[in-house]
Amino acid sequence: MRACELCAGDGGEPLHADATLRVVAVDDALHPGFCRVIWQQHVREMTDLDPSARAHLMQVVFATEQAMREVLAPAKINLASLGNLTPHLHWHVIARFRDDPHFPAPVWAAPSGRAAVALPAGWRAALRQRLAELLPGGAAGP
Amino acid sequence: MRACELCAGDGGEPLHADATLRVVAVDDALHPGFCRVIWQQHVREMTDLDPSARAHLMQVVFATEQAMREVLAPAKINLASLGNLTPHLHWHVIARFRDDPHFPAPVWAAPSGRAAVALPAGWRAALRQRLAELLPGGAAGP
Repeated sequence: MRACELCAGDGGEPLHADATLRVVAVDDALHPGFCRVIWQQHVREMTDLDPSARAHLMQVVFATEQAMREVLAPAKINLASLGNLTPHLHWHVIARFRDDPHFPAPVWAAPSGRAAVALPAGWRAALRQRLAELLPGGAAGP
Repeated sequence: MRACELCAGDGGEPLHADATLRVVAVDDALHPGFCRVIWQQHVREMTDLDPSARAHLMQVVFATEQAMREVLAPAKINLASLGNLTPHLHWHVIARFRDDPHFPAPVWAAPSGRAAVALPAGWRAALRQRLAELLPGGAAGP
């Protein structure tokens, strides 16, 4: 069995963390407005968490969605928990734009050939700040 | 603006419903173990719902995940709220199997050429029954 990459490393630039989870900005070449909310423990499915842990994780996913909407004004937010290759609970929170390389298809479809959308300078810092306001119990990074 | 298909129709075979949402089984040729949890009202994003409505929707998504795990024993559950083409809140709850046409890629990637996995006869009826037990306040269909 191969090592779990989300146990071994942060998985992106830390934006927010608490004892149970972390929010990171992912370096995705085609979709720069891409965050993940990663459960700290190696747990496979949402229904392997107890209901209160599940609710906490979703609260942070939705805070991330809200902060990304405020900072990036996307056409749509895409949320997904897949984990077929890396069965360690993590939520994709992706800002989608009408002229991004896959819109309106999911980011996992074949790309259209369009270039990545440019995002405003400093958006990650703005997102980190907004998450600190929305989730005052956490820290700026793991 | 085109009509919204999730306002106009059920979007699948009804398995469970209440005043705010419905669970349907989707006829997907490559992924027969595919359900959707659809908000009854035409709302775009999770963060457009108030927190209690959001929590109720996720409770039903996770009940659907749990019932699908019990009835179908998939290798992994995939959850996603995308809605780029149909911006009416709906969650995909997909049972994934190691020999399904896309595993371990997302179902939106290019298919491998493998055939759909055969599911046990009567799985939709078993799922409907299990949802009625997990969510006693609802009805069997919209």
